[in-house]
Amino acid sequence: MTRINRAACVGGGVIGGGWIARFLLAGIDVKVFDPHPESQRIVGEVLANAEKAYAMLTGAPLPPRGKLAFTTTIEAAVADADWIQESVPERLDLKRGVLNQIDAAARPDALIGSSTSGLLPTELQRDMRHPERLFVAHPYNPVYLLPLVEIVGGEKTSAATIKAAMDRLVPIGMKGVHIAKEIEAFVGDRLLEALWREALWLIHDDICTVETLDDVIRYSFGLRWAQMGLFQTYRIAGGEAGMRHFLAQFGPCLAWPWTKLTDVVDLDDALVEKIGQQSDEQADGRSIRELERIRDENLVGILQTLKGSDGGKGWGAGKLLKDFEATLWADGGNPETPRDTSQPLRLIETKVSPAWVDYNGHMTEHRYLQVFGDTSDALLRLIGVDLAYVEAGHSYYTVETHIRHLGEAKLGQAIHSTCQILSADEKRLQLFHALYDTETGETIATAEQMLLHVDSKQGKAVTAPAEVLVKVNAIAAGHAKLAIPEGAGRHVGQKR
Amino acid sequence: MTRINRAACVGGGVIGGGWIARFLLAGIDVKVFDPHPESQRIVGEVLANAEKAYAMLTGAPLPPRGKLAFTTTIEAAVADADWIQESVPERLDLKRGVLNQIDAAARPDALIGSSTSGLLPTELQRDMRHPERLFVAHPYNPVYLLPLVEIVGGEKTSAATIKAAMDRLVPIGMKGVHIAKEIEAFVGDRLLEALWREALWLIHDDICTVETLDDVIRYSFGLRWAQMGLFQTYRIAGGEAGMRHFLAQFGPCLAWPWTKLTDVVDLDDALVEKIGQQSDEQADGRSIRELERIRDENLVGILQTLKGSDGGKGWGAGKLLKDFEATLWADGGNPETPRDTSQPLRLIETKVSPAWVDYNGHMTEHRYLQVFGDTSDALLRLIGVDLAYVEAGHSYYTVETHIRHLGEAKLGQAIHSTCQILSADEKRLQLFHALYDTETGETIATAEQMLLHVDSKQGKAVTAPAEVLVKVNAIAAGHAKLAIPEGAGRHVGQKR
Repeated sequence: MTRINRAACVGGGVIGGGWIARFLLAGIDVKVFDPHPESQRIVGEVLANAEKAYAMLTGAPLPPRGKLAFTTTIEAAVADADWIQESVPERLDLKRGVLNQIDAAARPDALIGSSTSGLLPTELQRDMRHPERLFVAHPYNPVYLLPLVEIVGGEKTSAATIKAAMDRLVPIGMKGVHIAKEIEAFVGDRLLEALWREALWLIHDDICTVETLDDVIRYSFGLRWAQMGLFQTYRIAGGEAGMRHFLAQFGPCLAWPWTKLTDVVDLDDALVEKIGQQSDEQADGRSIRELERIRDENLVGILQTLKGSDGGKGWGAGKLLKDFEATLWADGGNPETPRDTSQPLRLIETKVSPAWVDYNGHMTEHRYLQVFGDTSDALLRLIGVDLAYVEAGHSYYTVETHIRHLGEAKLGQAIHSTCQILSADEKRLQLFHALYDTETGETIATAEQMLLHVDSKQGKAVTAPAEVLVKVNAIAAGHAKLAIPEGAGRHVGQKR
Repeated sequence: MTRINRAACVGGGVIGGGWIARFLLAGIDVKVFDPHPESQRIVGEVLANAEKAYAMLTGAPLPPRGKLAFTTTIEAAVADADWIQESVPERLDLKRGVLNQIDAAARPDALIGSSTSGLLPTELQRDMRHPERLFVAHPYNPVYLLPLVEIVGGEKTSAATIKAAMDRLVPIGMKGVHIAKEIEAFVGDRLLEALWREALWLIHDDICTVETLDDVIRYSFGLRWAQMGLFQTYRIAGGEAGMRHFLAQFGPCLAWPWTKLTDVVDLDDALVEKIGQQSDEQADGRSIRELERIRDENLVGILQTLKGSDGGKGWGAGKLLKDFEATLWADGGNPETPRDTSQPLRLIETKVSPAWVDYNGHMTEHRYLQVFGDTSDALLRLIGVDLAYVEAGHSYYTVETHIRHLGEAKLGQAIHSTCQILSADEKRLQLFHALYDTETGETIATAEQMLLHVDSKQGKAVTAPAEVLVKVNAIAAGHAKLAIPEGAGRHVGQKR
């Protein structure tokens, strides 16, 4: 996999900050130049949101966070970077000036992406000495959760640059989409702009309020578009007769005088005030921070849902997340890492996700078993039972579990789990997991599990191979010196 | 709650079929008139999809399915209905004729909704004798999963009709949104139309392919719009400075010559063929049925995710689902229902949801505990421990669980659970659950659980009140005559 080694970000607002978070969380060092007096605070806020979201998004092991440094010149930020991302305000003269400075100071092989949402790369690269490595890399807010990056080249951009840019987005969990021809606003903002114009007319003409309009979107086609886009949705609507039939049937509607798009709405004071007031009512007293939190939790949940789609293979943005996690596991779940076996192994670190809590904000019963199941999976990877092993036809199956609830985990709480091997033989693996409140160290729950090594095609228990048993025994030998934990061997209702 | 008692559907295509499914699954009898020779097959297919989706969507008890009857005349379909839904093709003369026939045959107090996606209610009601009860009720495909219904009145529509229509959508799980003024295509299709026109130009001009365009949507703003709409999203983008600031900042872009919306694209043969070919490539060999299945599974998962949002209170379409389930539980989870206590109680009937399976299509470990937790919840409702009881400050908490895995549940498989009370005292409730393959009767898993009656504010075990204990003891007395099930009292790893 082709990776970014050192990144530079010129401009650290909400968009620049989102890029910085993506790089840092992927383990990439980032140098930032932004003359704004509060740039460190702004970047810090975006980064805090991103870290919170990632902790809920994935249980896969993130690499050690990259180093963040702020510089006082563009030159110092970009000199040793191999990906430079420009995210300064949307003015052609300003962007050109900044890009020319970057161009002069950067390594000749560095990739230079612009976050512009509308300017043409041909215009941006006009005065550069090495224009072939300039491209548009246009992301969407919140950049740390929405994976899309529109990649657009200008007349002088080389094909090698486009390919290199697309490749390097994969290890940071993003989805590069190459737009074939450059036009102002590219594809996403074109579509948004069309809908936005129409929306403004609907409010202007009092057909509906901003809340009604948002409800129309989020109770109907918004749900469709999170997983399939426009054309795939219409393909289904066309039924067995297919896309061509759909177009024949609905095409003529295009000529009907429905939309008011031939006019541009005048965003005068009255309309601005109307929208502002209606938006305040819709927010119902919720602050921007609170709305951000809800948005991020919802996005996390939707991404996780799509990860489980299509029989567990993943779909759309969820498949991307699944693939991203696979690379994280491959990098971070290194089974060769020597580990201290004089203590139970500390395996899962996570935060209680919003999808995991009940009405009262307490972690739902079955999510405890989810964390314990993840703990077993983490142990299995340590003994060489990873995805490749499972796909080759063998695995360990859980046959029995005993859970005790000793406390409560709450929304957002940092928790971690440990695993102690109680006993092991050629087929069996008896484990004792504990779940802790990371802050207080209090034990929240425990789980004892029996796992059997199976041939998954035959569906029966078989002896594990020597290379697995060697690793099992190395840990089990260390753990044999530990005391049997309180609660092990209990049956339900047993007197203490 | 105001409910529909008897519904009639005139027109039973994909949209009419969706309405029929919504009514039937809410326990409402439906009479259908559709002269199409294959109407029974088409309605049957939509209904089968809807039932599959509902089984995965909710564990709440659906009422007994309403009765479905096909009639040979409009008059026979509508005579005794109190909600009549017209879903015939989009031609004004045709719709007017059908609505006039309905008008003549229906009870004077019946509500008449039209599924039109573009025609004005004032035009539709022009020749009706009782035009005051005609309104547009415009749903979105798939009607059985997307909750939105745009409610639009014409000049002669009464305010009472609009209110009655909005109220009656709640018990069938739909979200009525009242559009203040009638315009062609209302709000949703206006927005879709704007985006659709722009999308067609982007394909026509080879800026991107249909797959690229769909990816742009579903990896970015599609994820946003499933939960917040356009304005709420932009409110957040505006940051602490708010909506008015956002408009001031981005308003001027509207005047930029970005979109091509002033022109209408010519959907000639070449463009239709281009889109058709690109759509085939995008589908990658997947049939419409397969895409429908994936779409429905994704929608189910997204709705369930949003149900858990905002600390379990639910958000948007997920909050609607939560409220809908509350009414289902209130209706169907009647704790007074006398039950046979000579056998374990059969409590949960469901299908293995796509969100529940792993890569191999097997139900994930922690989902077993989810079904067992739902089984305990269902028992608790039978003894009077429902949501109101919990909100008043007392509940039963699970303190210990022992699970045995004896088989495997697979994607889509019908499963059900039973519960036997092993022992009960003033504070404790010891339960034994079993999970079965409904088709073969095979036991897939069992769970033994100890629950404690607690004061949730004090966080300590307290004696349950007499009215709960009476119900507990009535069931426990019956179950005392049953044998102790095999596996009860086991500890992990115990020899058989």
